[in-house]
Amino acid sequence: MADADEILHSDAMQQRLQEVRTLLDRQKRVESLVHRQEMPRHELVENLIAKQHHNELTKKLDAMHPADIAYILEALPPDDRLLVWDLVRAERDGEILLEVSDAVRESLIDAMEPKELVAAVEQLDADELADLAPDLPTEVMQDVFSSLDHEEREQLRAAMSYPEDSVGALMDFDMVTVREDVTLEVVLRYLRRFDELPDHTDQIFVVDRDDKLRGALSLNTLLVNDVEVEVASVMQDHQLVLHADDSAESAAQAFERYDLVSAPVIDHHDQLIGRLTVNEVMDFIREQSEEELLAQAGLREEEDIFAPIMDSVKNRWAWLAINLVTAFFASRVIGAFEGSIEKLVALAALMPIVAGIGGNSGNQTITMIVRAIALGQIQPEAARRLYRKEMGVALINGIVWGGLLGLLACWLYDSWALGMVMTGAMTLNLLLAAFVGVSVPMLMARYGRDPAVGSSVLITAVTDSGGFFIFLGLATLFLL
Amino acid sequence: MADADEILHSDAMQQRLQEVRTLLDRQKRVESLVHRQEMPRHELVENLIAKQHHNELTKKLDAMHPADIAYILEALPPDDRLLVWDLVRAERDGEILLEVSDAVRESLIDAMEPKELVAAVEQLDADELADLAPDLPTEVMQDVFSSLDHEEREQLRAAMSYPEDSVGALMDFDMVTVREDVTLEVVLRYLRRFDELPDHTDQIFVVDRDDKLRGALSLNTLLVNDVEVEVASVMQDHQLVLHADDSAESAAQAFERYDLVSAPVIDHHDQLIGRLTVNEVMDFIREQSEEELLAQAGLREEEDIFAPIMDSVKNRWAWLAINLVTAFFASRVIGAFEGSIEKLVALAALMPIVAGIGGNSGNQTITMIVRAIALGQIQPEAARRLYRKEMGVALINGIVWGGLLGLLACWLYDSWALGMVMTGAMTLNLLLAAFVGVSVPMLMARYGRDPAVGSSVLITAVTDSGGFFIFLGLATLFLL
Repeated sequence: MADADEILHSDAMQQRLQEVRTLLDRQKRVESLVHRQEMPRHELVENLIAKQHHNELTKKLDAMHPADIAYILEALPPDDRLLVWDLVRAERDGEILLEVSDAVRESLIDAMEPKELVAAVEQLDADELADLAPDLPTEVMQDVFSSLDHEEREQLRAAMSYPEDSVGALMDFDMVTVREDVTLEVVLRYLRRFDELPDHTDQIFVVDRDDKLRGALSLNTLLVNDVEVEVASVMQDHQLVLHADDSAESAAQAFERYDLVSAPVIDHHDQLIGRLTVNEVMDFIREQSEEELLAQAGLREEEDIFAPIMDSVKNRWAWLAINLVTAFFASRVIGAFEGSIEKLVALAALMPIVAGIGGNSGNQTITMIVRAIALGQIQPEAARRLYRKEMGVALINGIVWGGLLGLLACWLYDSWALGMVMTGAMTLNLLLAAFVGVSVPMLMARYGRDPAVGSSVLITAVTDSGGFFIFLGLATLFLL
Repeated sequence: MADADEILHSDAMQQRLQEVRTLLDRQKRVESLVHRQEMPRHELVENLIAKQHHNELTKKLDAMHPADIAYILEALPPDDRLLVWDLVRAERDGEILLEVSDAVRESLIDAMEPKELVAAVEQLDADELADLAPDLPTEVMQDVFSSLDHEEREQLRAAMSYPEDSVGALMDFDMVTVREDVTLEVVLRYLRRFDELPDHTDQIFVVDRDDKLRGALSLNTLLVNDVEVEVASVMQDHQLVLHADDSAESAAQAFERYDLVSAPVIDHHDQLIGRLTVNEVMDFIREQSEEELLAQAGLREEEDIFAPIMDSVKNRWAWLAINLVTAFFASRVIGAFEGSIEKLVALAALMPIVAGIGGNSGNQTITMIVRAIALGQIQPEAARRLYRKEMGVALINGIVWGGLLGLLACWLYDSWALGMVMTGAMTLNLLLAAFVGVSVPMLMARYGRDPAVGSSVLITAVTDSGGFFIFLGLATLFLL
């Protein structure tokens, strides 16, 4: 790991990125020279580039943390990315593939020979292999699988058998175990036989002969207690234990709540099968919050910023299609009132305000409710209270903002009646938004759906069509 | 810490919440009985309740982790919340105040006497005190401050002097330090004198006589090496070192990138002044992503779901006001074309589709760009490439979706010309959305603003007004 000034400041990361870019540019300039003068390309490239920039770049990359190389690969456009990827030493390929984003990983794997891939991936632990497996060609996985020993195969099978968002999919197998009837002295001697303890070892797990988890001995306890003492008398037997099929989300909440560094993972027979560490949990939290942000904007998945146009189109089309349908529906609601608009064209100019503010207000309500549901803080009994509160907020907003807009409409079109309709429609649409904003996520949660997915489209659809209908309907009733 | 089945499954957390609720209900039922029969209230309350449900509840709460009590407090409506809060043992108040959300913390502090507050808060460490300080009444802080010893006062001053999103504001002062010229044997003996090491101690910091950081000795290294060896020969001197005024965001990225559990924090003289631990980083990441989600929906801050209506109105009004202004502006654009709409009322029904889809598409673009900027992956040189890509995506979407809608418009209103205008307007508005979607965050970033704030409002404003203008403008030119 490098020095602080080198790795922490984002400027420093930027600077490294810039250095790599400069070296790449120089290399490309030489290559284009070679091309133009039609010299025997191979020789020149070998001589000029390979020995200068090539070497310099390789050295730079060798000194970098795999996560930093991943960062640089993600920031480079595709052709530069592959140039740099070729310069990375083959034995580091595996750990870098683990670090890059899904989209970039695909592009790197596509550029590799099956043989290279097998070599890169063979070096990884079973849990890491399981993470990469879905992106690897089948024949590569078969080759890798046959190269594993029995225990690793079992681990790989286990890791791949759990659904993506479960503890089993995030756990690793690097746990240190001891028996409860030995002294701390023995444990210390045992540990001294290791070259290195696994990362994030803050506790050693205590198991019996059948690998059943009996408790945990934290390094903290190990270090402050008398070495003559037996493990059984100082181990913690009431600690957080995860099951491999627990949801990663609930495990993450437990890690946050209890400030954990690692936790043991057991199977249905109480046997210790792995452990979950805080770095995996942190990655999970970050990924999840990113997915949520992307989903809110209607992006199916993280996008390589340099992805080919068609990949981006595919990533975004579903959301646009859904919105097109709801927009078309809203448009038909307006269509039904064309007669009224023809008579009073001001309606056409005012109606988007009613619909838009309803959508904004509804999204505020729904975001708050979805968040509270995700934290498990909303009980069915709370529903009435929430309706009352949100409707109250909507009523106040309707009267204040609706009143203001009513005055504006009245002033613009010189009609008190139009102003009143505007105020009334705003208020009703805000009430509708509040009602739907509470109901939709509560209903989705009750029927076991994730309330975060699609709530926002749904509420906008309702407040658009509803807003047009309420405003144009009121106008038709009272103004024409 | 309790057993797995008790704390991990969100059902179990729900179950505890339910138990607390049931006990509260029973208590309230008894109280109302007392009330109705107008018996001498005090006696009955003392006898009946205090001895039964009261005791049971208190026992339950005593057995819970402070984070779990915080969770329950957040999920209870205000009156029940204060009932439970009164039952929590006074010496635990401080740690629970640290765990609850800002909104709920305010409501709890409001309900406490200054004397109670001082007693609760005095038990906390300096870094924890600094977190609570902004919410505490001044006289309480003064009392607490005068009760601290010299070192704690300095720590509190230091912790409070750093801006909210800096490393200094997140660090704690619980670090264990050793000198580099002692053997591991000596370190082990030194550690054995502790009752307990501070949480998240994965490394011990090596300092010289002036408290200057020389390196770090991981517990891992300490445990696997020969005890005769000197600290200097096995310590890591190239590790991640943070400065107290580094941004918390960059520190969080470093923790994620390098999978850290703790990192030393130094001041401008290279003196070790504190350490940052992964649990603080994880809380920071979660809070930040939550703020982002709330900001996207236009909520100023996290809301207590049971907040009084006026608090909610205040939390939400700024966003609604801004949207009102942009919606009003869009409405005036339509107003300028009222003559055209009067002649061809179909325009009124079709125009929201053009505006809406433009907004959706623009938000997709902007979300992707904002994310890439946050990761520092977009260089000025990449701008041209991004414009080209996003415009390409917009063009394809315009032709496909615009074409589809053009056909629909043509079929509905039996006019090829109207269909062509629809397709043209959609395509142009999507191109506008792509252009603005790339430009706005890039410009904001260049001028040092956070591109995540307000981008979404801005793009919707542009695509709404722009969409109406393009569609109605084209229609006026070609159809009338």
